[in-house]
Amino acid sequence: MSEQLLLSNIRNVLARLEETIIFELIERAQFKRNDIIYQTEAFGSVLGGESLVGFHLLEIEKVHARIRRYTSPDEHPFFADLPEPVLPALYYADNPLQPNSININNLIRDIYETEIIPYICLEGDDKQYGSSSMCDVTCLQALSKRIHYGKFVAESKFRSNPTGCRRLCAAGDQAGLMEEITDPEVEDRVLERVAFKAETYCRELSMEGAGPKIDPGIIVDIYRQWIIPLNKEVQVEYILNCFSTSG
Amino acid sequence: MSEQLLLSNIRNVLARLEETIIFELIERAQFKRNDIIYQTEAFGSVLGGESLVGFHLLEIEKVHARIRRYTSPDEHPFFADLPEPVLPALYYADNPLQPNSININNLIRDIYETEIIPYICLEGDDKQYGSSSMCDVTCLQALSKRIHYGKFVAESKFRSNPTGCRRLCAAGDQAGLMEEITDPEVEDRVLERVAFKAETYCRELSMEGAGPKIDPGIIVDIYRQWIIPLNKEVQVEYILNCFSTSG
Repeated sequence: MSEQLLLSNIRNVLARLEETIIFELIERAQFKRNDIIYQTEAFGSVLGGESLVGFHLLEIEKVHARIRRYTSPDEHPFFADLPEPVLPALYYADNPLQPNSININNLIRDIYETEIIPYICLEGDDKQYGSSSMCDVTCLQALSKRIHYGKFVAESKFRSNPTGCRRLCAAGDQAGLMEEITDPEVEDRVLERVAFKAETYCRELSMEGAGPKIDPGIIVDIYRQWIIPLNKEVQVEYILNCFSTSG
Repeated sequence: MSEQLLLSNIRNVLARLEETIIFELIERAQFKRNDIIYQTEAFGSVLGGESLVGFHLLEIEKVHARIRRYTSPDEHPFFADLPEPVLPALYYADNPLQPNSININNLIRDIYETEIIPYICLEGDDKQYGSSSMCDVTCLQALSKRIHYGKFVAESKFRSNPTGCRRLCAAGDQAGLMEEITDPEVEDRVLERVAFKAETYCRELSMEGAGPKIDPGIIVDIYRQWIIPLNKEVQVEYILNCFSTSG
């Protein structure tokens, strides 16, 4: 029923997410760093103790929860205690994943706010808080989906070598598992594709006098330094979590 | 303060919006038409009398209203009676527009749901209601911004020929105004650029085996048939509205 969950469809989904991530990072880089939007209480108590971006993300997640976004196995909320869906539940007959509750969104949000934003945006404050936060929320949601897609990748890798994976799990050999799931050639291809897309998009903007304020290489760095490693972290955690005990 | 509102920056903003519109239309075309998400009461009374897309759009607008999206002169909500912003008001010192309340979002939504969706999506129901609605909301918001940007374009055109425009206004000559603001060369360039971008993006997806389910020419048609004409409608309405009476 849901093509998005088929293991054979992983590359399709990742390719589409790539577009969103590249596009939103370049969009965000139009604006200054605007540190104030990541600071809790910066706007007083109206945001319920959250930062502006936190408040915005939570409110959007509440809406998405009601239209059952987080019942899908490829979606992970940043916040707990979201409202129940107003739509009847869907049964994901094609879900290939083992039951698990892996969710590294706190880490993703922390890295995004403290490492990625300072890396892509010029220092300073241009008052574009709403627009900046809009990019941040879209970007965080896409990053979360991209990184947690490691679960589907790991499931697929496990199925191609169940005996080897189970042995590494039994030995608690995290480094061995990391090696098992690592494919430097695939990583290089991802980085090349990201470079190509980021360059194409930046060139398109420049053609129209809308010169982007970011070097396409920066986007590639973000994939190399954070997105790919975090995705692999999810893969290892998934295999350890799901295939360690049962025989 | 806000570069986005400068008339010299119109092309930049329109170019960036183009990316979003092209991307989201292609995304939406992955899914079937899913007519049920546009029907009011299709899911019972839980959606407050709205369709799923209407409910989703309204709830998102409530969130965005609170972070003061609709206080910006380039943003237009689809719904009335949205909550007040929780952030202090921004003063848009650089706003070049005349005071006006032109908002054709009802028309945009109607055309999107009854013309554009049947044009880009295959008939049928694939149960991807949440994902479809996600594309719809992003797309509707981008279309609204793109089309209402006609106000900025019109302001700029008025400033380059105030006497001619005022004369046409005084005569109530809508057809003359339409001719005044029409530039077939610019329109052709927009259509060429849209074709180029849509082809590039569809090719990128195909490269990764994620073949899009839409022909890039369809996106060009949507610009030709609806986006450009609606944008020009806003331009004419703006000039008539803002420059008819005062001397």
